[in-house]
Amino acid sequence: MIRVAIAGARGKMGTEAVHTVMKHEAMELVAALDYKDIGATLADTGLFPASYSVPVFTDMAEMVAQTKPDVLVDLTNPHFVYKHTKEALQQGVRPVIGTTGFTDEQLAELTALAADKKIGAIIAPNFAIGAILMMKFAKEAAKYLPDVEIIEMHHDQKLDAPSGTGVKTAQMIAEVREAKGQGHPDEKETMPGARGADFDGMRIHSVRLPGLVAHQQVLFGGEGQLLTIRHDSLNRGSFMSGIAFCVQEVMQMETLVYGLENII
Amino acid sequence: MIRVAIAGARGKMGTEAVHTVMKHEAMELVAALDYKDIGATLADTGLFPASYSVPVFTDMAEMVAQTKPDVLVDLTNPHFVYKHTKEALQQGVRPVIGTTGFTDEQLAELTALAADKKIGAIIAPNFAIGAILMMKFAKEAAKYLPDVEIIEMHHDQKLDAPSGTGVKTAQMIAEVREAKGQGHPDEKETMPGARGADFDGMRIHSVRLPGLVAHQQVLFGGEGQLLTIRHDSLNRGSFMSGIAFCVQEVMQMETLVYGLENII
Amino acid sequence: MIRVAIAGARGKMGTEAVHTVMKHEAMELVAALDYKDIGATLADTGLFPASYSVPVFTDMAEMVAQTKPDVLVDLTNPHFVYKHTKEALQQGVRPVIGTTGFTDEQLAELTALAADKKIGAIIAPNFAIGAILMMKFAKEAAKYLPDVEIIEMHHDQKLDAPSGTGVKTAQMIAEVREAKGQGHPDEKETMPGARGADFDGMRIHSVRLPGLVAHQQVLFGGEGQLLTIRHDSLNRGSFMSGIAFCVQEVMQMETLVYGLENII
Amino acid sequence: MIRVAIAGARGKMGTEAVHTVMKHEAMELVAALDYKDIGATLADTGLFPASYSVPVFTDMAEMVAQTKPDVLVDLTNPHFVYKHTKEALQQGVRPVIGTTGFTDEQLAELTALAADKKIGAIIAPNFAIGAILMMKFAKEAAKYLPDVEIIEMHHDQKLDAPSGTGVKTAQMIAEVREAKGQGHPDEKETMPGARGADFDGMRIHSVRLPGLVAHQQVLFGGEGQLLTIRHDSLNRGSFMSGIAFCVQEVMQMETLVYGLENII
Repeated sequence: MIRVAIAGARGKMGTEAVHTVMKHEAMELVAALDYKDIGATLADTGLFPASYSVPVFTDMAEMVAQTKPDVLVDLTNPHFVYKHTKEALQQGVRPVIGTTGFTDEQLAELTALAADKKIGAIIAPNFAIGAILMMKFAKEAAKYLPDVEIIEMHHDQKLDAPSGTGVKTAQMIAEVREAKGQGHPDEKETMPGARGADFDGMRIHSVRLPGLVAHQQVLFGGEGQLLTIRHDSLNRGSFMSGIAFCVQEVMQMETLVYGLENII
Repeated sequence: MIRVAIAGARGKMGTEAVHTVMKHEAMELVAALDYKDIGATLADTGLFPASYSVPVFTDMAEMVAQTKPDVLVDLTNPHFVYKHTKEALQQGVRPVIGTTGFTDEQLAELTALAADKKIGAIIAPNFAIGAILMMKFAKEAAKYLPDVEIIEMHHDQKLDAPSGTGVKTAQMIAEVREAKGQGHPDEKETMPGARGADFDGMRIHSVRLPGLVAHQQVLFGGEGQLLTIRHDSLNRGSFMSGIAFCVQEVMQMETLVYGLENII
Repeated sequence: MIRVAIAGARGKMGTEAVHTVMKHEAMELVAALDYKDIGATLADTGLFPASYSVPVFTDMAEMVAQTKPDVLVDLTNPHFVYKHTKEALQQGVRPVIGTTGFTDEQLAELTALAADKKIGAIIAPNFAIGAILMMKFAKEAAKYLPDVEIIEMHHDQKLDAPSGTGVKTAQMIAEVREAKGQGHPDEKETMPGARGADFDGMRIHSVRLPGLVAHQQVLFGGEGQLLTIRHDSLNRGSFMSGIAFCVQEVMQMETLVYGLENII
Repeated sequence: MIRVAIAGARGKMGTEAVHTVMKHEAMELVAALDYKDIGATLADTGLFPASYSVPVFTDMAEMVAQTKPDVLVDLTNPHFVYKHTKEALQQGVRPVIGTTGFTDEQLAELTALAADKKIGAIIAPNFAIGAILMMKFAKEAAKYLPDVEIIEMHHDQKLDAPSGTGVKTAQMIAEVREAKGQGHPDEKETMPGARGADFDGMRIHSVRLPGLVAHQQVLFGGEGQLLTIRHDSLNRGSFMSGIAFCVQEVMQMETLVYGLENII
């Protein structure tokens, strides 16, 4: 059984992470860390069932002394996350961090600290394993089938197009694919924008409709064939399996890793 | 058994139409019409098996007198098609025509002629029944789910974007849907073209990749749901079932119909 | 503005229906009907914001007298629904009912009552407009493309396979399509079940995976082409647009209609 | 320029391979090998344009002496392929072989011969790079998302279900995934076969429709997400890019490799 502590248990992601760890057969939730007094146990917060008698601490040293966690899952925000990560590593607790916002200096310091202590640490801006796999596979496929278009589809309240994942996928593909125009050289848009956004010759199309959540497909065309890699993210549950994966993986590691794509 | 004559049997579409009629259990190919002497039978052209002993004529009156066809399938070109249609109707043969290029005056004259003779006639710019159904269903669905985007996908040798079918689909939807902007009002394209072409607020996206043939999907989004209508056309066979359908349908009709969507 | 009352406001569907009507620009929520005393207003139940000062009644006659609703949306259960529908019609309120469980006698009586009063009434076992459209289009397409397979996909906690919608779709298709075997006559399953369930020769495939919600695609194959009609239902929101549609539609009607497919 | 010879140029695959090499900017077709006298050049066979003045040989030693090919692409059949591969390696020509049918002893001998000569050789039962990538990605994804179902879709003249690729994909996944039941433990098929074929708990569904060619999707479900990997093979062109890839790759190799998945 891996002993897990969670920081940020009252947030949207944190609440679900609490349930995920409580239900996991290989994990035990031993403590919660909060920046203010929210009651003696998670149950006392009124956000969880009465059976969730996990103690809450505001001081990490005290938490570690009393509950001896193996892993700290941190779903707070950039304001707390550097301090939490450093303290956890210093006390021999493996951090699994779900926020961005570290400076390069902080990352270097934390990487050295993990190496020094010989314990694992994971910092993951995106916990959705399926999305990470989609991007990795897309990068791999582009070596062999360099004609590629990306269709990303989101709910119609999204402000920016293309999506961050769409652009990141194109960037990862561009690392292995020479920029090249696609489509017929004399191709004409009779209606502007029809052919989508142009990234090194790859086209990115952004669909926005009510009912959609977060979806992306990457299409690779070759003579007589088509390869499609698609990810559909329907709710925050997609992040939970990533967190559970990281908690187990970090126990086997002896260094800090940034980005889930580097351990998958 | 419906007795069928074919004009344009040596062309790409015509060749396949010959095979389609020959193999059809409810049809008999009784004659071919050509503008020049190509041999006594289809077999003599060298384009068909030796067993295709269907006689070839260069004069319609003679063809009708000798072979008494019920239907003339015409896959020639705008140059011949008006004359063929008129002659066929005058001689009591039902025309099934796969070309555009009639003037409004010609259509009016032929419509009157068919009505006068009380025989059916079909002029169909597009014989692919699946594509016709897609457009009809899309128009129907837009009444209830007015948020719609179109993704059309073709081989990368196609010159124009969006495709003709993509634009026609949008036009048919626009007949039943008030123009309205889609997506968030403050939506921003961080890369121009990402959101596709704008047709009355509907977005059309054109994907071009080697390996693709001719595909289109129409997506309708509503709260909590998505309806997708998709057509994939993989080869000319999609037109052949439309021709077979028309040959049978025209036997039941007593007027001229323009466009397959009006009998489906 | 259409004046709407809701019965069953505290249930899962009812709660969302309350929000739907409150937010709708053409509707006003004037009353809630409950079988027991739950407070003077919806806000008093603690389930809704304080601004939801809609009065709650336990007696329909009193509710109608005081708030004069045009429409009663009933999301209770078979136990209450017949009585509610009858009372509503008697008092000139148009019912929109989201439950099954009426006997044929009850339906006949309610139909006569609506006709007598010359007011509309809708009883809809399924409010998801997209799913209804999918089934209607599938039935229509099968007339022209009779080779069809159904793939329905649901979360892996679903007990029965195929799904009710999958079977209903096959039944609707069977009304217009002669039973016929599909696939090669000498086709062999080297692993039993590979070809799915057999319904009049149509094959139905049931996919069950975590992450899925409720999805179905109907595939029609013809020479050289494929037509696919797909519906994805991601949450209860798909029912809400159906309810809003019915509330507006029932105002134009003068009879009782059973099943959304009969007004779409 | 890579100097290429082709054996089996008159077959369906061979004919297309000839065109592929002729059009490839980094390759030169220097010879064809046939088991019987078919004319002095490919043009003389009547199967190719008059400009295809590539000499035809019936003896490999003579062909190598006169045309000095770097690579032999062999698209003949199991009857010839062992002899051709051995002779090619002995004369320092790299073989790219598209047939199965080698015994283990033959493979061992040829592997030793290639290693001894320090030249590359590729034997590939399947040249479709996209299909190989699909299987590789599926195996990789199953490590992280072990709930998987396979839907393979083929034309309705196919005799066996599931397809060879479907079964091979399941086998590759089974190498990294413990057998486990999927779906609800109390799941019931109200129509037999609905849940597909069972392979170690994975379900395989076989769709057969006219219009389809050869398609497969592998679906991975996790909490809140779905990952789909799909390959569509529309014509023999999909094999041609695999052959072109192998011709270039084999020039960099110094050993024999069996199966494209081992160099991709």
